[in-house]
Amino acid sequence: MDISKTNRLSLVEQIVSQMETLIESNSWPVGSRIPPELELMQQFDVSRNTLREAIRALVHAGLLQTKQGSGTFVCSSSVLGAALEKRIQKANLLETLEVRHALEREAAQLAAMRRDKEDINRLQEKLKACQIAAEQGNSKLYVEADFELHKSIVEASHNSILIDLYEHMTIPLQTSIQNLADITTHTDFHIGIHEKLIEAILEQNSSQATDSVNEYIAQFKETLK
Amino acid sequence: MDISKTNRLSLVEQIVSQMETLIESNSWPVGSRIPPELELMQQFDVSRNTLREAIRALVHAGLLQTKQGSGTFVCSSSVLGAALEKRIQKANLLETLEVRHALEREAAQLAAMRRDKEDINRLQEKLKACQIAAEQGNSKLYVEADFELHKSIVEASHNSILIDLYEHMTIPLQTSIQNLADITTHTDFHIGIHEKLIEAILEQNSSQATDSVNEYIAQFKETLK
Repeated sequence: MDISKTNRLSLVEQIVSQMETLIESNSWPVGSRIPPELELMQQFDVSRNTLREAIRALVHAGLLQTKQGSGTFVCSSSVLGAALEKRIQKANLLETLEVRHALEREAAQLAAMRRDKEDINRLQEKLKACQIAAEQGNSKLYVEADFELHKSIVEASHNSILIDLYEHMTIPLQTSIQNLADITTHTDFHIGIHEKLIEAILEQNSSQATDSVNEYIAQFKETLK
Repeated sequence: MDISKTNRLSLVEQIVSQMETLIESNSWPVGSRIPPELELMQQFDVSRNTLREAIRALVHAGLLQTKQGSGTFVCSSSVLGAALEKRIQKANLLETLEVRHALEREAAQLAAMRRDKEDINRLQEKLKACQIAAEQGNSKLYVEADFELHKSIVEASHNSILIDLYEHMTIPLQTSIQNLADITTHTDFHIGIHEKLIEAILEQNSSQATDSVNEYIAQFKETLK
């Protein structure tokens, strides 16, 4: 490999890495269109070919998507997220739920140990939203509030890998779960068990937190049968 | 975007996808050198530029690595694996262990439900290897046997996402664990708890399997302090 080729390769990699940072730091948020080619060529001080190759590498990695006629859009916030979402799409629902439950169980236990004041406020707020949706009998709203509550529990674990994995396992599940909503959620039992779980986390009772997660998983599996 | 550009883009994507399949199916195993450029150009019936761009996309995804002067090598078996390994390298040891334990706990429970004859044979064989290494007082061998045993438990869960995640969380951990080997493993307690775990899986006793996992995790965390 001659020197110019090595430089070209590393230049593309540099641009790829800079664009990845912009995406991961949310400067280029998911769903947004990236700036036009000319602007990026100036910003990164590179040729059109180098820029295009960097963009194609990110399209391949699943971070960007090129829509003919309308530009290039951010479609995932991290390489891990994109890879995980692709993998989940090939898996069946039961497999995905089992892994998600494993993460939820660990998160509940760690959240009970580590939740801080900010976590406590957020958990109470999200639980309240679930209770309101349940009272209103609004199952679409309930599913959304339920997802938000679980996300807050995982955040209270303060384990960054757990948070990343959970987030990206949840997005592809959301549609499937929505379909199961009427049978699995929005029952007095379901809201009751969540109240118990949050109480356990607030009281720093790890084993009660784990028991609550096991209880709703068992109920969920029963419903799937 | 004009038609020739669209075709070019999709052609690169096609080659990328074909090479990915060769890697994931182990036709191009991890560690091996991929065939020379000319051979691949003929095999895929593409130009040098198209081939090179496809290779660079796979280098970026972490599947291939180009070593100056000696060729291009396979360095990871899947996009998810490469992304996960990259992510784990940025995380701290405790975070990684917590996620790994969550996967092990779920795997033990599912293995107790689903293990088949083949799993039983493999589990007994791997446990035997641990026992022999422990008797010999060979801690390097013990750590290896222990990893193999845990991998077999995860395989007996018959959950393909769990298997993928676990495998790619384990590789980057292996070095760290090796360093902890003398203090955490290779004790009568450690081998005893593993015998109890395998017994629970063979007897299809899910709750005993979970208890055993929790027991060795608690011991492990105690040692980390």
